[in-house]
Order: sequence, then structure tokens, then C-alpha cells
Amino acid sequence: MERILSLNSYELVRRECKPEGSAVALAGGVIFGGATLAIAAGPCSVETEEQIEATAAAVARAGANLLRGGAFKPRTSPYAFQGLGRKGLELLRAAAMRHGLAVVTEVLDPRDVDLVAEHADLLQIGARNMQNYPLLRVVGASGKPVLLKRGLCATIDEWLAAAEYILLTGNDRVILCERGIRSFDPSTRNLLDIAAVPLLAQRTHLPIIVDPSHGTGVAALVEPMALAAVAAGADGLLVEVHPNPARAASDGQQSLDFGQFERLVERLRAVSVAVGRQMPSTRAVA
Amino acid sequence: MERILSLNSYELVRRECKPEGSAVALAGGVIFGGATLAIAAGPCSVETEEQIEATAAAVARAGANLLRGGAFKPRTSPYAFQGLGRKGLELLRAAAMRHGLAVVTEVLDPRDVDLVAEHADLLQIGARNMQNYPLLRVVGASGKPVLLKRGLCATIDEWLAAAEYILLTGNDRVILCERGIRSFDPSTRNLLDIAAVPLLAQRTHLPIIVDPSHGTGVAALVEPMALAAVAAGADGLLVEVHPNPARAASDGQQSLDFGQFERLVERLRAVSVAVGRQMPSTRAVA
Amino acid sequence: MERILSLNSYELVRRECKPEGSAVALAGGVIFGGATLAIAAGPCSVETEEQIEATAAAVARAGANLLRGGAFKPRTSPYAFQGLGRKGLELLRAAAMRHGLAVVTEVLDPRDVDLVAEHADLLQIGARNMQNYPLLRVVGASGKPVLLKRGLCATIDEWLAAAEYILLTGNDRVILCERGIRSFDPSTRNLLDIAAVPLLAQRTHLPIIVDPSHGTGVAALVEPMALAAVAAGADGLLVEVHPNPARAASDGQQSLDFGQFERLVERLRAVSVAVGRQMPSTRAVA
Amino acid sequence: MERILSLNSYELVRRECKPEGSAVALAGGVIFGGATLAIAAGPCSVETEEQIEATAAAVARAGANLLRGGAFKPRTSPYAFQGLGRKGLELLRAAAMRHGLAVVTEVLDPRDVDLVAEHADLLQIGARNMQNYPLLRVVGASGKPVLLKRGLCATIDEWLAAAEYILLTGNDRVILCERGIRSFDPSTRNLLDIAAVPLLAQRTHLPIIVDPSHGTGVAALVEPMALAAVAAGADGLLVEVHPNPARAASDGQQSLDFGQFERLVERLRAVSVAVGRQMPSTRAVA
Repeated sequence: MERILSLNSYELVRRECKPEGSAVALAGGVIFGGATLAIAAGPCSVETEEQIEATAAAVARAGANLLRGGAFKPRTSPYAFQGLGRKGLELLRAAAMRHGLAVVTEVLDPRDVDLVAEHADLLQIGARNMQNYPLLRVVGASGKPVLLKRGLCATIDEWLAAAEYILLTGNDRVILCERGIRSFDPSTRNLLDIAAVPLLAQRTHLPIIVDPSHGTGVAALVEPMALAAVAAGADGLLVEVHPNPARAASDGQQSLDFGQFERLVERLRAVSVAVGRQMPSTRAVA
Repeated sequence: MERILSLNSYELVRRECKPEGSAVALAGGVIFGGATLAIAAGPCSVETEEQIEATAAAVARAGANLLRGGAFKPRTSPYAFQGLGRKGLELLRAAAMRHGLAVVTEVLDPRDVDLVAEHADLLQIGARNMQNYPLLRVVGASGKPVLLKRGLCATIDEWLAAAEYILLTGNDRVILCERGIRSFDPSTRNLLDIAAVPLLAQRTHLPIIVDPSHGTGVAALVEPMALAAVAAGADGLLVEVHPNPARAASDGQQSLDFGQFERLVERLRAVSVAVGRQMPSTRAVA
Repeated sequence: MERILSLNSYELVRRECKPEGSAVALAGGVIFGGATLAIAAGPCSVETEEQIEATAAAVARAGANLLRGGAFKPRTSPYAFQGLGRKGLELLRAAAMRHGLAVVTEVLDPRDVDLVAEHADLLQIGARNMQNYPLLRVVGASGKPVLLKRGLCATIDEWLAAAEYILLTGNDRVILCERGIRSFDPSTRNLLDIAAVPLLAQRTHLPIIVDPSHGTGVAALVEPMALAAVAAGADGLLVEVHPNPARAASDGQQSLDFGQFERLVERLRAVSVAVGRQMPSTRAVA
Repeated sequence: MERILSLNSYELVRRECKPEGSAVALAGGVIFGGATLAIAAGPCSVETEEQIEATAAAVARAGANLLRGGAFKPRTSPYAFQGLGRKGLELLRAAAMRHGLAVVTEVLDPRDVDLVAEHADLLQIGARNMQNYPLLRVVGASGKPVLLKRGLCATIDEWLAAAEYILLTGNDRVILCERGIRSFDPSTRNLLDIAAVPLLAQRTHLPIIVDPSHGTGVAALVEPMALAAVAAGADGLLVEVHPNPARAASDGQQSLDFGQFERLVERLRAVSVAVGRQMPSTRAVA
């Protein structure tokens, strides 16, 4: 069966290759897989200079160390907002620099990898593209760190096999991101598989973070699931934050406002200590 | 569609009926839904007097306040061990009393409810019987507190509608237990839906606990998922503990041994404080 | 894992026990598993004498050989119509007799089995009760033929293990009914697993029928899925038919009216011939 | 929620745009969506000249009108056979021409679309790429007919929204292919959703075919599911056929040998007549 992969569908990502675990360091100094958590926050889509500037300021102040934001958006509907493209990348990078944040953003097309790599510290492969092998190869060959999100109905082993495609290019700076899988209950957008965190820690040396925003699709569930993820051992979080979620161009119903994000970070502080981790020190940029 | 239930499929369990939340107290004084967590631990099946006595002693010492153990077992295979029945109930009750623990055990058959109610403080309805309405009605009418596990592929709303069947008998001492739902990844036995905890807290006033043993089916995942459950707001846990998991009559692969359970409780202590809860004080029974 | 059952979770139902396949004959002469298809039709719930009489007349005329109708209804919502109980059984039996039809109806409670067995030729175990083992044992011990529906998220092997519980009582007159499983697409109520038909034919000697009404939840899909089921080798069908689906007390959106059912039977005739089966001869009762 | 798309996530593909349905004609004369079924058969991967030649000869003789075969293979494991690339395309085209068959083959990378379009009559987008929007846009802009397979856990509406991306390029020659979705039962590789066929016929004017090979992953289930698909109204089939399935480089366990495919076509003939369709006339090429 497709789902029972032979043992050798992944070799390089196996825990045994690096029993102590991998720590992936970005250009700006943020580390995934160390004692300090990596907290990426920002809007689903980069919309305007004001929006991304305000968000960067707020998440840096609250304690995030990466800014997220989509410039190329994979939207189910062709009639939905598709992102600002190159302009979005420039706005994102500028805002991040002003606030001492690293940049993570998604790339959809092998032909855009160079452009996105110019503006980002971490290249995100979204859930829809987890098994887009040409894209994985090009992203891997770029040499940039890669954030590989789990596919909507990918098993743990299929996900690791996808990561293996990247490592085979010689690029071992790969971080995995659990973002919820598809289930039958319409109460949430996806079903966040927190158990994937400790399970992956057994099978692979790669760091793993959790996206509670896509993982639930419901803003009110983001904080408790962020706490749960860190309690279960996650190396970081990817959280959607927007100045005004009700008016977001995409994913508003799952975005936190600044106050909610601040509160999340506060509560996270206590839980991270309880499990022997620490939060990033807050940015002190003029 | 079946899954889009009309609003009035549950009324009595709605949060609005009791905005402050329900606290369900058992005869012996254990409370679900208060500041102190409820920790139920014990073997999947009651096997022998020695086994249940040793387990009761160990879990009480570690800090549990309820003893779990199956006397009537719903086994997928008719050739698997089906439980000791009445004898198992007696052993369970005796061991629990010796160690100051409350008793939770499953009932499968409406005709057995009186018998089980004599020996238990909390009647468990298992996942397979979540929509066994005659059983729900008889259990409700017994007046005993009920632990209602989520069905293997029940939506949150179907689960609440099942709880409503019990409340309609006049018995409002119902506790919900998330125990994992079915998914496509064979890496774990079930997919533990931690987001159900905060989601239920929005929709219902009933307490909710989590079973990380069935929820993962993998002993090594029980501790991190227990921490995650409490971080997300669970009111308690149901954990499988066995003197010798490798020789358990059922579910050995997901059972903790005594040392593992002790370590789980220790780690839980820090996380529970971080989220404003406390662990039960350990039993001090001669 | 729960889903990887050991080989010996079913023995008596295995194809090897009866390589030629079982034919299950009801008291009235209807046979499941022979060259002639078994066609059960009727309303979700018995509502009134007029309703069940009109339906019995119509489905007999169109070519059904069994009348279905619920007297004890397992409803997700406790506020939904729960069936007429004993009165419903009497109405169902009387209407069936007037039109030369056998009776199939559901039993929910071990304590009702004798009552239902008095009025039915075939006792139905619904999806919610597929793993209600006390009920399976009592139904098996009644000696009556049993229609065992697949659980909402039961694997093929779990379903066969449930059938084994019945055969172990000494009653081997068991028929399996595929009725759709739970999936993630809200377009249909359930996902009808037609491949279960040939897969079961490899693994078991028991006859298998298909319920395209629950299997889709959409009246317009019932006919094409009935044709598909028979093309794939099903031994019969279970179809919801109502004099006025828009006013049905339950499941109206998936019920056919008399004209639609007649058309279904007509189209089925051609497909059944194409796969070497035949339709029941129409009833000729005054 | 993601799965409840707004009505305007697809407009051009809606049934109302072309109530009589679309017929998509390929260069070589094969038509999808007419009275005659389209039958595509061939190996999972093109392996050698001998293999593809023998297969082309056999499927043409049996009654197929298209040859399928992968030259660029999206494999879960990076260590699995990835296809012959350009050489595979040339072998495929040559064998098809010798036997009067049209060619369908998959394209994975936007940068390969021109190359594949030179050798194929129908460009296949595989399940993993259903939401690879850059690829959909490039394939659409090629002007070639496109076979869009359903994603592994795509809803019907998400699938139609993906098709809309192609139609928006001005290319309306799109055919949908149901190929099974992910479910929880390991008995089959995927769960073939036959109900998608009539459901799509209500919602869209695009033709729809079924792949019972990937849809089940089990050779013994291919024939019954092919019959079911046509009985339910499918416009054609995509079937894996290999000279020696046991030695196939990929997907051998779900491939038919020549005799099995011949038998499938024979049995299909009767069913197609029963539902008012006809089989392609067999190729008569020297």
C-alpha cells in the first residue's frame, strides 16, 4: 500500500543520523531546535506597507523573532486574493529589517525560488506543495533553509520522505511544520496533530514547529493549541497575526490581533519554562 | 447532512446553561472541573488481584486520585480477552478502597448497569457505545456520574448530542473524555484531537478530560500528550498503567509502567502550575 | 495498532470456510446471495398506517421483495423523532404481509430483541451498533437472520470481526450491508465504499448488500450508486422510499418517491442482466 | 472553513454554463463525454521499448483508445524509480502511433510542459499536483487538453475550483479523473469515490473518468470497480496494464496483465450497453 513505505524511503532525515538532533540556524541568528523557541508571527498575506509595518512592530515587541507573511498565495479559489508578489516580498523584508526579525515566506513556483530567496531567510513550502517534487528540488538547491509544511493528508512517513528529497540536494537545513490535517469534523478547519511533534522527534533529527492558526482555523483555539504544542515539545510556532483580523484579505477568522498575540506569548512563557525551554528575548530595535 | 446538526440537538449541555462551568463531584470527593486535576490511572483490564493491587498502590503513590480498570471489555476480536466481569469489579473496588482511590470502569450492556454502579464511582461509556442510546438512557437513570468517551469518528456536535441524552434523564453529572479519533496515518492508533478541549469549553459547561493512551496507542507518546492536554485546558487525564506492559492482557503497547507514570506526574506538575491548575495531593492511606 | 487485527480475529466468516459462498434464506423465501437480487425498500421510519401501506404497495409493485422501515430509531439528536416502537412494528408487519414482502427492521436494545424478532424476518444492526457486542450476542442467539451494517468508520476487518461475534452464537445467517463511511467532503452524507463489495467477496462467504440512501444522503445519487453496487457484485440493495420525501419524519433528503424507485428498478434490470444476476419477480398479491 | 467555498470559487466549470455537457475531443479523434467511452490503458511507468510496445499492442487489440504511461513519475520515496523522462515520452508516443492510440501522460513541472505537450494528446495533472496552481496555469496556457486528477483529500468543490484555474486561461478542454481519496482502512490503497461521478455530473459540464487502479491499489478490485464506474455514468476509464505486473517498476500490485484487461473490456461491454453507452471500436492498425 502507498502508506506503508519501505524503510528506505528516507535515510538522511532519520534520527539515527544525528541522535542529538539538528539545530537549524538562519542568517539572522534565529535558531530552530535549540533551547530557545522560534516564534514566527505575522499576517496570512502581506497587504499594505502600513499593515506589515504595524504587524512587524507588534510581534517584535511581543517577543516573536521571525516575521511571516505571504506574497505568493496558493488560494483554493482562483477568484481569491493571490498575493502582492515581488512587491509583497519587498514590503515584508523591509518591515522585518526595521524590527530585527527574520523573514519566512512561501514559494509556490520553481521559477520564483531565486526571487523569494533574495528576500527571505526561510523558504516555506506550503501544505499543497509538500509532494511537489520539482519545487522541493529547486528549493533544496537554493541552499536556503526550508520550512516544510505537512500536506493536508500526508502521513508522517510521507512527510519525512518529502524532506528527504530536500536533503538529497545537499541542503540539510530543513524544519518541519505541523499545520493540521484533514478530518471529518467541520468544527475546525483542520485537525491539529500535536502527537506528530513527539512522534517526529523519535523518527527524525529535524526541528519541528507547529502552526496553530491553520491547524484549527479558529482564532479562539490558537492560544490553547500553541501552549499544547510547546508542552508536547515543539521547537517553535508559526502564528497568524493581523492588525484587524476582521478586515484581513485572507484567513481573518484564524488570525490573532496584537493584544491576543501578546497574551499568547505571556502564557507561553510559563509553559515553556515548565518544559525546560525559553522564549526568545524581545527585540530591542529603535 | 448528518453532520450539520440543528442547533437544538443539544440544549442542556450548552455553555450558556451554566456559563461558569460544571464541576462534577464523585462520592469519594474527587472533583472534575475544579482547580485540581482529576487523574485516573490503571490497567486496561483487571487481570488478577496482584496486578490491580500493585497498580492501585503505585498510581496512588504517584498522585492519581482515581483507579481505572476494565471488567467488561469491548474487544474488536471475539477471541480476545473479554474481561473478568463481576469478579473484576470486586477486585477493582477492593484495591481502590485500600488506596483511597475512586473507581471508574466501563459498562457495555444496559442489563449490567446496576451491577457496575454498585462497584464504581464513575460509569464509563466507551467510544464504541457513544451512540448506544438505550445504554445512555439506563446509565443516566442510574443517577451515577458518567464518563462519556468520544466515538471513534464522532464530531464534537454529535458527542454533545449524546451527552444531551444523558442529561435528559435528569442526571447532569457527565464528564467528556477525548480519546482520539480515526485518521489515515497508521503511525498512531488514533489521532488525539487536543483542540477538542478548548472547543468543548466554548460549547459546553461539562468537564473534559483526555485519554492519551488510547489517543495515541504508543506508550512513548503518552507523556508529551498528557502535558499537551493539560496545557490546552483539560480537567484531567485517563492513563493506562500496568505493572508489566509487555505482559498485559490488552493494550500493553500503550500502557506505562510505574516509573513512567511517576515521571509523567512529575512533569505534569510543572505544566499544571503554568496554566493555573494543581495536581491532586498524593494519597496518604496506610 | 487497533486496525491491524491478527488473522484470528475472524475465523468462521472467512471465505475459506465456504468457498462457494453462503446463501441466506429468510422465512418468507427471499434469498440473499443467490442469482436473484434481494431488494429491500421502504421508509426510514414507519410513521402512519397510510404511509407504510402505500409504500409497501408501491415497492412490491415495482419489484422489491422486502419492506424496510424503522420502529426504533437511533437518532443523533434526542429531540428528533425516535420511532413508533411496538406500534410501528405491527404496522410494518401488517403492510408487508398484505403485499407479500419480507420485513427488515432495526433493533437497538438487547431487551427489545424478542419483540422485534416477532415482527421481522431480518433483524438489522445499524451502523452505530456494529460494535455493540452485547446486542450482537443477543441478536445472534435469537436465531433470526441478521443484517449487519458497517460502522461509520469501521475497517473491513473490524466489520468481519463483528460478524464473527454473531456466528460464534451458532447463527450463521448474517448478511453484511455497506452503507457509507465517514469522510471529509460535506458534499455527501457519507462516502459509499463500493469497493467493499468485491473486497468482502474475497474475504468472506457472507452475502453483501448496499444501502445507497444512507451511503450518499442525496436522493439524486441513489439510482447511479444502486447501479454501481450491482455492477460491482452486490447481492442486493436497501433503499429508502417514501410517499412524500419532502414531508418524511426522517431522512427525507435521501428518500426516493415511488416514481423514482420504479425507475431505479427498471434501470437496475438491465445492469443486473449485464453482470449475470436477475431481479426478483414482482409480487402478485391481491 | 476552508471546505465551505463560496459559490464563486468556480463559475466557468458550472453545469449551468453548458447544461448539455462538454465533449472534449483530442487531436487523434478520441472524444471524452460522448456516447462512446474513452478507455486509457497502459503501464504506470514507461520502462523499455519492448514493454510499452507490447502493452500498446495488447490494449489496442482489447479495445482501448488511449495509451497511458508515465515518463515523469512523482514518487513518494526519492529512492524509487523516477521515470525515463524525455526518452520515455518518445517511446510512449512511438508505440501509441504504431497502434492508433492517443497518448495521455503526466507532467509535474511547469518547465516541462512544452516538452510533454509535444508528445502527448492529453496532459495529466496528478493527484499530488491538483492544487499546484503555477502548473495548472502553464498547462492551461499550453492549449492542450488536460486530465485533472482529484487530489488525495480534495473535496469535490476544491477539485472544481482547481479546474476553474485552467478554464480561466482560456482552455476549456478539461477532463476530471476520480482516482480514490484517502481513508482509514488499510485494506485498499485509496477509497474510490464512485459517487463523485454522478455528483460531478450535477455540478459541472466537464467529462469525468475513473481510475480504478489507483482508486483501489488492488488488481483484483479493478474490474468490479471499472464496471461500477461505468454503471454510475463515468465517461471513461484509466487503467494500469503491464505485460508482467509482478515485475513492474512501479504499482505492480494494482496493474492488470493483458488477459485480465481483455476480460475487463469484455465485461464492460455488457454493462456499458445496459446504461446506454458504447465501447470504442477496436483499433485496426497494421
